Amino acid sequence: MANFQKLTSRGEDYSKWYNELVVKADLAEQSAVRGCMVIKPYGYAIWETIQSELDRRFKEQGVKNAYFPLLIPKSFLSREAEHVEGFAKECAIVTHHRLKNDPEGKGVVVDPDARLEEELIIRPTSETIIWSTYKNWISSYRDLPILCNQWCNVMRWEMRTRLFLRTAEFLWQEGHTAHATQEEAEDYARTMLDVYADFAERVMAIPVLKGVKSPNERFAGALNTYCIEAMMQDGKALQAGTSHFLGQNFAKSFDVQYLTKENKFEYVWATSWGVSTRLMGALIMTHSDDNGLVLPPHLAPTQVVMVPIFRNPEQLNAILDKFNTLASELKAMGIRVKIDASDKATPGFKFAEYELKGVPVRIAMGGRDLENGTVEVARRDTLTKETIAMDGIADYLKSLLEEIQNNIYKKALDFRTAKTREVDTYEEFKEEIKKGGFLLCHWDGTPETEERIKAETKATIRCIPTESFPGYKEEAGKCILTGKPSNKRVVFAIAY
Amino acid sequence: MANFQKLTSRGEDYSKWYNELVVKADLAEQSAVRGCMVIKPYGYAIWETIQSELDRRFKEQGVKNAYFPLLIPKSFLSREAEHVEGFAKECAIVTHHRLKNDPEGKGVVVDPDARLEEELIIRPTSETIIWSTYKNWISSYRDLPILCNQWCNVMRWEMRTRLFLRTAEFLWQEGHTAHATQEEAEDYARTMLDVYADFAERVMAIPVLKGVKSPNERFAGALNTYCIEAMMQDGKALQAGTSHFLGQNFAKSFDVQYLTKENKFEYVWATSWGVSTRLMGALIMTHSDDNGLVLPPHLAPTQVVMVPIFRNPEQLNAILDKFNTLASELKAMGIRVKIDASDKATPGFKFAEYELKGVPVRIAMGGRDLENGTVEVARRDTLTKETIAMDGIADYLKSLLEEIQNNIYKKALDFRTAKTREVDTYEEFKEEIKKGGFLLCHWDGTPETEERIKAETKATIRCIPTESFPGYKEEAGKCILTGKPSNKRVVFAIAY
Repeated sequence: MANFQKLTSRGEDYSKWYNELVVKADLAEQSAVRGCMVIKPYGYAIWETIQSELDRRFKEQGVKNAYFPLLIPKSFLSREAEHVEGFAKECAIVTHHRLKNDPEGKGVVVDPDARLEEELIIRPTSETIIWSTYKNWISSYRDLPILCNQWCNVMRWEMRTRLFLRTAEFLWQEGHTAHATQEEAEDYARTMLDVYADFAERVMAIPVLKGVKSPNERFAGALNTYCIEAMMQDGKALQAGTSHFLGQNFAKSFDVQYLTKENKFEYVWATSWGVSTRLMGALIMTHSDDNGLVLPPHLAPTQVVMVPIFRNPEQLNAILDKFNTLASELKAMGIRVKIDASDKATPGFKFAEYELKGVPVRIAMGGRDLENGTVEVARRDTLTKETIAMDGIADYLKSLLEEIQNNIYKKALDFRTAKTREVDTYEEFKEEIKKGGFLLCHWDGTPETEERIKAETKATIRCIPTESFPGYKEEAGKCILTGKPSNKRVVFAIAY
Repeated sequence: MANFQKLTSRGEDYSKWYNELVVKADLAEQSAVRGCMVIKPYGYAIWETIQSELDRRFKEQGVKNAYFPLLIPKSFLSREAEHVEGFAKECAIVTHHRLKNDPEGKGVVVDPDARLEEELIIRPTSETIIWSTYKNWISSYRDLPILCNQWCNVMRWEMRTRLFLRTAEFLWQEGHTAHATQEEAEDYARTMLDVYADFAERVMAIPVLKGVKSPNERFAGALNTYCIEAMMQDGKALQAGTSHFLGQNFAKSFDVQYLTKENKFEYVWATSWGVSTRLMGALIMTHSDDNGLVLPPHLAPTQVVMVPIFRNPEQLNAILDKFNTLASELKAMGIRVKIDASDKATPGFKFAEYELKGVPVRIAMGGRDLENGTVEVARRDTLTKETIAMDGIADYLKSLLEEIQNNIYKKALDFRTAKTREVDTYEEFKEEIKKGGFLLCHWDGTPETEERIKAETKATIRCIPTESFPGYKEEAGKCILTGKPSNKRVVFAIAY
């Protein structure tokens, strides 16, 4: 049962609002294990739709799913020098493989005789174990490309965790591809970024900027990291997906060469790309309001909920007849419907629950509606209600769901556009960054400048745009900090 | 590329045949981590179909998916006394959460300062962490039942591993339900066994016996374990799925009580049920032959493959025209089709590859066929070929796939029936068990008798049947070992 104590408002405390909402809307909760979450059925149902929508799009790009081991030998992590710097430090380490009864009392203790020869790391990401495998799969150009993805859990021992946004264990997909040429690999990395952007905008209704990361923000071991960046309602940036061009780094570390058509040996070119349950955090923070979740219809586990309001069993049955007919019609159109005739709660309680849970459309029918052949249709996104004739309502609802999907996308885009502005001096930057949003600034391209700005303001370069977007025009200028020349503005923001 | 060195035959060395087949058919392989497998794209595609078929059936039973933590605090395992005895011993134990650069050289070492206060175990199964969670979800009868399932990886530190059959890490689903009454919980455990049995027989084409485990073979912590048992081609038994009635054991260990309608507190009743990637092993060993995999059409990633045989590009194009038309027609019928016009291999090489990979139907078309408006249709199950007119062939193929599905089920059932026989004396038992198969015997119901038979013959009671099956009739008799009375025969076999 959801908890109906009033949600903290976003204005009052944005961070508290988020934490409360995740729990009250039955999406996820903390577990008994530090930093690891339980994803509850309602939250998982949304994640399943995210998975199936992405999986279909991956397969259209020729991707096949596979599964690689959870554990990685410690020595593998040191094989790619930059990679170990970026990843190896905070992780879960398996050192033993047996428990025994505690000789001094009850319970069990680690058996010291069962120490592993080499420690195993729970995967923080799988480049190393996968490239050690690809070595055996690749010998000739005939074996390329390899386009694999896995849906799995990964672990990074984060010190400060927040549900969905930063957890020690999280669920994700990681794609790992192997190509004969640099050009093909780079194209593929960009193609997968396009897949992510298209998914984020059309399915999640989250507008995203496409770009590349500055060297400071690149994935450990990548030559180039493509990313999509979203803006949350508190004006902070959230990286929603990344696609890496890894060059030949992992192929060299694991000695993966192939015989070309010209009978020469060459190292293989690689990409990797991933999105995670962090997307759930982005979803919540982009659309939801002080009344609870707002879900885009394309992701909502229930798109239309129907609640009868009745005085007696005869009236209930008459209403349910109408609801059942409509529900069949909607299901045949592919719409996810629920009729809530449960006697465990009042209509008012149900209304509040479905509002909290972000069901896009709520239909109520009472005695008067029954007489008039109407229903009350409530939209979650605008919180408006209308009385609509039952006649032809299925088509009406179908287009209403699309309208809601478009409306919440547009609302998020308008918000982002309003919070995106050009800033030309460092003085102004230091003031403006406090207000949140994306600051479009010239930058001299050096890590030193980026680091100093980060140290002084906490802002980082979220991306160097590769496509235009509302509020952005490509133009040369001078770095806000050093005055050195810059050929285009980059996007600065405080990030999650 | 598949490896076409001839497969060891089943007669020559059954175990070697299996190991070779799994690798040559590109299903799975050993990884760099002891006992952990890589599931390759072709094997994973079969697993994905298994998942989606089961998932749909679970949801029809009201089940919702969720996700619980990978790691379990060590102390949780000791909470349910029998459970820790059955499970805790061989497992992967996380003791540290940080690596650091090796002060004495290159690479990384475990940071001794980052020792966990309490060790964490990689889940061997999740009853304990889930019941610690359910405690917070359940307070009243209104919260019941809870019907959750998770698809995840689990780990048991097996000493001797075999791909799919017994691996340290494997993939599975585990359902965990909470009920208000004993009756409801027991019914649900049986319902899920029915779901498994129906799935095994209709989708995997594997005949299974339904029954309950003897106390010796029960799940650690269960009051009753329902199971489905299959027979492999070497006459050994393989447990293909289990569903446990857990009574109130876990509710008591984690103090999960609910307020009844009568305002009393009572402990909650539980079930758990699971199947794993072990089903892949059962699939391979039930149907495949000395030429390679035989896949039931309902699970085959490619159900119909089309191979052109051509002398020149014009002929190829003419054949591809016909293939493309047919492929569209088949896809519209929901049939998974592949056209292999690749120039990387000869038709003969392709035929061998698709045979090895168990594609149910292969279609070849050459110049003569083109003139005659025919194709050659080859069945993988019977290895027979026929020349068929292209006219009306889509419908023919659709029913052929169903015929193949039924045929391989019937073949497996006939095999099992032939290898199932009644045995009435222990002398005969000791001889017969060497020949493999299921022995239907009277047993006095004591663990001592079962243990002595196991010690002397390696045979165990696979199940106490709860339903009749070909070759079985319910009748009273005397225990083969002790001569004590028995009210029905049980199934003995050597098991995987």
